[in-house]
Amino acid sequence: MTDVKQTEQTKRSWTTRRDAKNKRVNQVMKMTDGRVIPTDQIVEVLEEVLVPGDRVVLEGNNQKQASFLSEALSRVDSGKVHDLHMILSSISRPEHLDIFEAGIAEKVDFAYAGPQSLRMAQMIEDKQLTMGEIHTYIELYGRLFIDLIPSVALVAADKADSEGNLYTGANTEETPTLVEAAAFRDGIVIAQVNEITDDLPRVDIPGSWIDFVVEADAPYQLEPLFTRDPRHITDIQILLAMMTIRGVYEKHQVQSLNHGIGYNTAAIELLLPTYGESLGLKGEICKHWALNPHPTMIPAIESGWVESIHCFGGEVGMEEYISQRPDVFFTGRDGSLRSNRTLSQLAGQYAVDLFVGSSLQIDAYGNSSTVTNGRLAGFGGAPNMGHDPGGRRHSTPAWLNMINSDEPLVRGKKLVVQVVETHQTGNTPVFVESLDAIDVKEEANLATAPVMIYGDDVTHVVTEEGIAYLYKAKSLEERREALAAIAGVTAVGIKHSPENINRLRQEGIVAWPEDLGIRRSEANRSLLAAKNVEELVEWSGGLYQPPEKFRSW
Amino acid sequence: MTDVKQTEQTKRSWTTRRDAKNKRVNQVMKMTDGRVIPTDQIVEVLEEVLVPGDRVVLEGNNQKQASFLSEALSRVDSGKVHDLHMILSSISRPEHLDIFEAGIAEKVDFAYAGPQSLRMAQMIEDKQLTMGEIHTYIELYGRLFIDLIPSVALVAADKADSEGNLYTGANTEETPTLVEAAAFRDGIVIAQVNEITDDLPRVDIPGSWIDFVVEADAPYQLEPLFTRDPRHITDIQILLAMMTIRGVYEKHQVQSLNHGIGYNTAAIELLLPTYGESLGLKGEICKHWALNPHPTMIPAIESGWVESIHCFGGEVGMEEYISQRPDVFFTGRDGSLRSNRTLSQLAGQYAVDLFVGSSLQIDAYGNSSTVTNGRLAGFGGAPNMGHDPGGRRHSTPAWLNMINSDEPLVRGKKLVVQVVETHQTGNTPVFVESLDAIDVKEEANLATAPVMIYGDDVTHVVTEEGIAYLYKAKSLEERREALAAIAGVTAVGIKHSPENINRLRQEGIVAWPEDLGIRRSEANRSLLAAKNVEELVEWSGGLYQPPEKFRSW
Repeated sequence: MTDVKQTEQTKRSWTTRRDAKNKRVNQVMKMTDGRVIPTDQIVEVLEEVLVPGDRVVLEGNNQKQASFLSEALSRVDSGKVHDLHMILSSISRPEHLDIFEAGIAEKVDFAYAGPQSLRMAQMIEDKQLTMGEIHTYIELYGRLFIDLIPSVALVAADKADSEGNLYTGANTEETPTLVEAAAFRDGIVIAQVNEITDDLPRVDIPGSWIDFVVEADAPYQLEPLFTRDPRHITDIQILLAMMTIRGVYEKHQVQSLNHGIGYNTAAIELLLPTYGESLGLKGEICKHWALNPHPTMIPAIESGWVESIHCFGGEVGMEEYISQRPDVFFTGRDGSLRSNRTLSQLAGQYAVDLFVGSSLQIDAYGNSSTVTNGRLAGFGGAPNMGHDPGGRRHSTPAWLNMINSDEPLVRGKKLVVQVVETHQTGNTPVFVESLDAIDVKEEANLATAPVMIYGDDVTHVVTEEGIAYLYKAKSLEERREALAAIAGVTAVGIKHSPENINRLRQEGIVAWPEDLGIRRSEANRSLLAAKNVEELVEWSGGLYQPPEKFRSW
Repeated sequence: MTDVKQTEQTKRSWTTRRDAKNKRVNQVMKMTDGRVIPTDQIVEVLEEVLVPGDRVVLEGNNQKQASFLSEALSRVDSGKVHDLHMILSSISRPEHLDIFEAGIAEKVDFAYAGPQSLRMAQMIEDKQLTMGEIHTYIELYGRLFIDLIPSVALVAADKADSEGNLYTGANTEETPTLVEAAAFRDGIVIAQVNEITDDLPRVDIPGSWIDFVVEADAPYQLEPLFTRDPRHITDIQILLAMMTIRGVYEKHQVQSLNHGIGYNTAAIELLLPTYGESLGLKGEICKHWALNPHPTMIPAIESGWVESIHCFGGEVGMEEYISQRPDVFFTGRDGSLRSNRTLSQLAGQYAVDLFVGSSLQIDAYGNSSTVTNGRLAGFGGAPNMGHDPGGRRHSTPAWLNMINSDEPLVRGKKLVVQVVETHQTGNTPVFVESLDAIDVKEEANLATAPVMIYGDDVTHVVTEEGIAYLYKAKSLEERREALAAIAGVTAVGIKHSPENINRLRQEGIVAWPEDLGIRRSEANRSLLAAKNVEELVEWSGGLYQPPEKFRSW
């Protein structure tokens, strides 16, 4: 044994990563002022820091973008820097794909590619880009510590001091997680900041984790992604919201939850202080949230419905409102929001009763996907929130309420609710016999079909026709019947049989609005606690400051 | 609407938590030197900081314990401080339960109660303690941001400076997560440290998250929980290890994995550089690990098997070895390990191919539990690692290898492997018709039976008889037959039928050692890369410094 040991030990250095880092950092130090990179030197610095084949995590999700660094990266000399393996939460900006066309990058692992999904599908077909895997946010973060450990992390923050301490303000999001993966494996961390100052409001990430900071020539890009103007909420969406409040939240005593973004969930949020109040549900349901700071939550917060909200990220215009509501939001000593995408995804997976989402397609067994032909949109966070977490062991009333047998080892279930109209705008049916995802799997040569939420995880589907209580279905066939009963005039819906529906309603597997005591004629916009953005501002006492594009006054 | 809004707004303060915190902090400031609490004032400070009914998270897991603070808490005047709602990752120390006997605390939410599980069960029966819920670590952390937000966090670190910046060294563990939950909801954070110094090796948690630090009268308790002396590994455990390497790791090309603690997994670790090497598997399997720094990993690391290890926590005696192996471990600029229990649990859930665990009881369908009559042991992290994560979307060869159908929406599966002998020491059978957990549910009035790992998540069970490839079973009945085939002379095993076994072997649903090319006579201790702790030290070049109790020289 001793021989083996000595041979191996003399053969190998155990500090190759650290040595490589030190070499690169030393090369760069002649261009920097300590830890501060001059703004106009960033391209040259990246050309020294990056080595062909490097694994590079570039911060960019559906909200905050390290836009100065991504632009700089697209300007490096591809003779010096090429074949990078990029790790991107979200492929959102043109230069995220430009770098592949320019040969600077070669491979990508990602979670979401909404705005760039068409171009990306084309580039894969043209072999301009090698696709790694499509992830949810949280599994991509997990891999940063296992088999996708980055050599370099390029991230964004609000402010830095000359020691490299970072202040991320309301948009902490995934920055600490990306930095931790690189900083503690001898990777190099470069943070763009809007301002370098020695007077930080608080420290979100310690300077000893950061190698270099650079003042960007413009503030990082930040999208108001979670703002929905109540003006666009329709009467049908209000009907769906009433059914969800009555037939799901009240019925199962839902205490803690996550809402995906969309007009359906905005309608629910705006009905809590009106319709929800009329049912006497305040203080009974919807008290704890894992949620981005949706402006449409303001009336529910102001009317005292909400005990706590933990946020994945921030929302443009909500900063001052949040800082004045520390009893509800997580805030720092400086008063501003502390978001954390990793922890909020973790909480949204394991610690809440219910997730509500929507989908572009749902098949006859409840499998759903937002992937349609020609688009590689990715998953974002929905599959993480929208499944029954097998590792959960604690119980809540709603979780226990899903129990539908008296087997001795039976356990509860997370409520995973799909709220959809039977047809999308343009009259495309949502309910289909077979998901486009199956074709996309073949076309894009994926290992598995890109399903967003699997049918066996879905407990409820709500449409304008009624609610299917899928957790009660005793067989696949009954699940199919329950879905058909609420799928309207679609390929799935037309196969329902009227006798079945009566039985399903009697057994509580399907409910019509009238079974829930809801008259369709009641469902109209007069129920909304705020009918437009101006009324949200009014509810907030002027603290909510919506971006220009949402202002009509 | 305006009327409603104004009424609500005038009714309510939105800073009740902040005001309460400021009031408490101001009361304490007269006893402190800035952020530093004098060691001998800690009980008085806790009596001012804590208010009856407070939700208090006290750091204490199976490794690091905030032992100075827990002792101080047990000495507060229960006339002043009572009815606390404690949140404890692990109920490990006597005073964790003493505080309930003294009336200081009333309710507890926890994840693990190993050393105190008997006393705890008795106290529940005697109504000295109200039990909240039993969690896995990671869902308990999630709830800290949803519906178990702490008012006070009592944590432990190695060093602090006078600004409150914390250095946690190798044992970062869950400290940052507990602190974040309290610090950003106007909770009060008190950290005990072994030393206050203005020269921190690195910052693990920023000072702006910490309210007070106190130099403990003794270093925090730290258990060498993940050290297994190879001396105690038996020939049967070596047989199990050979079967697992050949019949699971090699067969499915397992690249990334987590090992629970125990002699079974220690045997696997010590066979990689010998038996694994002889199979030509180095560089092919077991490259990336989510794992505590097991000393029994040293030979595999030294022989070049291991590309990376991300750690939940540290391990006593491994500090210097780790700091000299930064190509393998996550380390900071100061050279010492950076562990992170939250991130490692996340990675262990979502980013690895395989989990290997063991169990005290497995029923006829593969459900397992370590809960036995009279003990409320809790779950720790195993259920989180030991299930198929429904939110996972990326694929790896091993994950895809679990696919056993050609359904269009089929997906892969995480490998969840149970390695057990058919009988525990003392000849108690591991395979039972029905788990004790079912009785414990009734006795302790739990909402569901405390199952550690559910049968439908288990892909493989390895015993000294053979391997059951449960993921291939086409029905519950076939799963039962496969288990019976390897369950030996137990209530489950005696029901096997010899004809069935031949069919199951032919179909590859069961394999005997000889089917894997393993001769039982080969399985002996000569295959271990290290046969005792001294040889582990030798492999490490003297860098591993085992605690006294593991030294025999």
